[in-house]
Amino acid sequence: MLLYIDDDNVVAFYTKRKVKDMGIPSYADRMAGASGSAVREILKLTQQPDMISFGGGLPSADSFPMEDLKEILHDITENLTPALLQYGETEGYRPLREEVAKFMAAKNVNVTMDNVLITSGSQQGLDLVAKAFLNAGDKVVVESPTYLAALQTFRMYGAEFIEAPVDADGVIAEELDRILSTEENVKLVYMIPSFQNPSGRTVTTERRKAIMEVIQKYNVILIEDAPYEDLKYTDAVYPSMKSMDTTNQVLYFGSFSKTVAPGFRIGYSVASEEVLSRMIIGKQTCDLNVSVFTQAIMAEYLKRGLMPDHLKKINAEYMAKRDLMLATLEETMPEGITWTHPEGGLFLWLELPAHMSTNDMFIKAIEKKVAYVAGDSFYAAGEPHNAMRINFSNATPDKIVIGVKALAEVIRENM
Amino acid sequence: MLLYIDDDNVVAFYTKRKVKDMGIPSYADRMAGASGSAVREILKLTQQPDMISFGGGLPSADSFPMEDLKEILHDITENLTPALLQYGETEGYRPLREEVAKFMAAKNVNVTMDNVLITSGSQQGLDLVAKAFLNAGDKVVVESPTYLAALQTFRMYGAEFIEAPVDADGVIAEELDRILSTEENVKLVYMIPSFQNPSGRTVTTERRKAIMEVIQKYNVILIEDAPYEDLKYTDAVYPSMKSMDTTNQVLYFGSFSKTVAPGFRIGYSVASEEVLSRMIIGKQTCDLNVSVFTQAIMAEYLKRGLMPDHLKKINAEYMAKRDLMLATLEETMPEGITWTHPEGGLFLWLELPAHMSTNDMFIKAIEKKVAYVAGDSFYAAGEPHNAMRINFSNATPDKIVIGVKALAEVIRENM
Repeated sequence: MLLYIDDDNVVAFYTKRKVKDMGIPSYADRMAGASGSAVREILKLTQQPDMISFGGGLPSADSFPMEDLKEILHDITENLTPALLQYGETEGYRPLREEVAKFMAAKNVNVTMDNVLITSGSQQGLDLVAKAFLNAGDKVVVESPTYLAALQTFRMYGAEFIEAPVDADGVIAEELDRILSTEENVKLVYMIPSFQNPSGRTVTTERRKAIMEVIQKYNVILIEDAPYEDLKYTDAVYPSMKSMDTTNQVLYFGSFSKTVAPGFRIGYSVASEEVLSRMIIGKQTCDLNVSVFTQAIMAEYLKRGLMPDHLKKINAEYMAKRDLMLATLEETMPEGITWTHPEGGLFLWLELPAHMSTNDMFIKAIEKKVAYVAGDSFYAAGEPHNAMRINFSNATPDKIVIGVKALAEVIRENM
Repeated sequence: MLLYIDDDNVVAFYTKRKVKDMGIPSYADRMAGASGSAVREILKLTQQPDMISFGGGLPSADSFPMEDLKEILHDITENLTPALLQYGETEGYRPLREEVAKFMAAKNVNVTMDNVLITSGSQQGLDLVAKAFLNAGDKVVVESPTYLAALQTFRMYGAEFIEAPVDADGVIAEELDRILSTEENVKLVYMIPSFQNPSGRTVTTERRKAIMEVIQKYNVILIEDAPYEDLKYTDAVYPSMKSMDTTNQVLYFGSFSKTVAPGFRIGYSVASEEVLSRMIIGKQTCDLNVSVFTQAIMAEYLKRGLMPDHLKKINAEYMAKRDLMLATLEETMPEGITWTHPEGGLFLWLELPAHMSTNDMFIKAIEKKVAYVAGDSFYAAGEPHNAMRINFSNATPDKIVIGVKALAEVIRENM
């Protein structure tokens, strides 16, 4: 069960709304059990100044390249053309698609504009691929744990989940092979290979190769969700699955929300034209196209070559925050608590002793003005209850220290 | 069958793509028969300079309030805050929701911000209401003809359609009553009461009242799709269905795409909190939220009170274009062709003699450099073949004259 924080900041367990006898028909079956995303509801919470939220996955407000964006906005405003205010092609604004293709090429993914679809955040890619491929009862292989909004999106289309066993190196290739060779109607394999949400774990290069070899044996699409790929606090290099994709089976999701600014809602799907063509048809019934205006801003940002230096800057900041959170955890957490040491991304994953429930503890944490996301939200089958995801990108350094201390206190009191 | 114009401007009948043996699983059943929207494919065509397209539904590039928008963009850029670049609430940016509530109040719809959901164009409202309410096999009552992208969106969720008989005043209330009293699983009634797409027809005030009385007898939602409501070339006043909604059964879709600029992708749904709550949950899995940045632009535009004068200006321009198209039709069309005289909106509806097919004639029209949308796209059941929708807002006056003359020639040659 997800915890729900409503507009009045009252914490309550979400109870399914009943359709009253008020002239409204019953909801669709796909809405059964659907509650507001814990992550999104917690977003609201983060807007309360006295609360320290490790719950959301928001980039730091300090990370936005304000001065460069102001300059670009100034220039675009001066030279504003009606074309930037008009409807656009569903595939996306061509100059942006070209820049994304170049951006991918710099990461050894050799694609053209025709392999790029611009989406309203990479979240929309999830909705579009589900719409294009999933019938009710079709199966999706997911990491365990995995991104909760991916689970929610696929569930809307009636997907069933198979949790792939993982070890420290990522999904175990032999286990994936076993699943794909025995289960019927598996259409999608969903993975976040780099700096995973929620676990913070990264799939090793060797394991990536082994997984790709398995994928190529089956009629299945591998979704490589990579919104954190560029938020990297290590010199280690992890080639993307897409860069190893010789059979056009990888659908890669990228996003500028975590690196530049979420407010423009620009994500991108990179795949074969065949796969994109069906997602494009789905997008036409969803929202026609992403704002041409915000696409033009992002195209200009990439064109000016600002990304590499910007990434260096924010990665240094995020690495410092990660280190501060790790150090504070080390100092304050009681024995028996473990956590991941991610090489990138936005999240740490804490595991408490098996008898503890992070759901039960949530209200007590809120009372101490610290929030997290309970672990069970990230499991297709709802386990384990003794984990939590905490975010280190959004809070200021002093709040990271205060928040982790408060969290340690709550945990200690509930052990 | 829809006509398809691909990237190379080759006109072809759309043939369903086969999933090749290339490691890609089969598509979802909902994609069966789905082709790119005729309207959207024609959008691409409109980007060819030598073609006169009456096919799309684009506002005129001249209609955008360039100077006011530049001023707003300048001011927002000068005072740019990280909040405008961050994730936002799924419901929408509060200042915009407040402005929309005021905008609705000025049209006698008394709602608060809590009754407003900001969507990525009003198109997204269609996707979200379908996601929230439709199981496969559920029924949607539609006008005949109706907006083709609404049909496509509802079809994606397995909807079945019931075409409500219409006369010159709109959907016949008694017929609607008969349908709702005899058909099972009707969840939605979809109407465009003002300046309808594609027919250009408007439901009279008396008929609106009669329809509302019928709606209130049943557990059904009336979707009032009103993207053209403010594009009005008459002194006649048509109260919105929403303004008569005493039972919270009307879900109203508005849009700034046709009045200010489509490039910001700002539409809005106005309904009871109950109905919106489920659409919001659906939106969280689709794209989290509309760009906060573009929402802020639109909020500022409304706040500055620029809309009334702007509407006066563009309505005068569009009325002149409508009149020019009507006059040119009168001058050039052979006998036996009839067309509507819309009091607003963007479209005229032409009916040719019954033996003619606007699908068959389409390639010949393209050869004469004029495009339209064939009538059958707008019918849930695919009839009639002898109609077409033509748009008068996008082309320049001289192109309206040239295009209508070319169209008259094609029709004459094929009679």
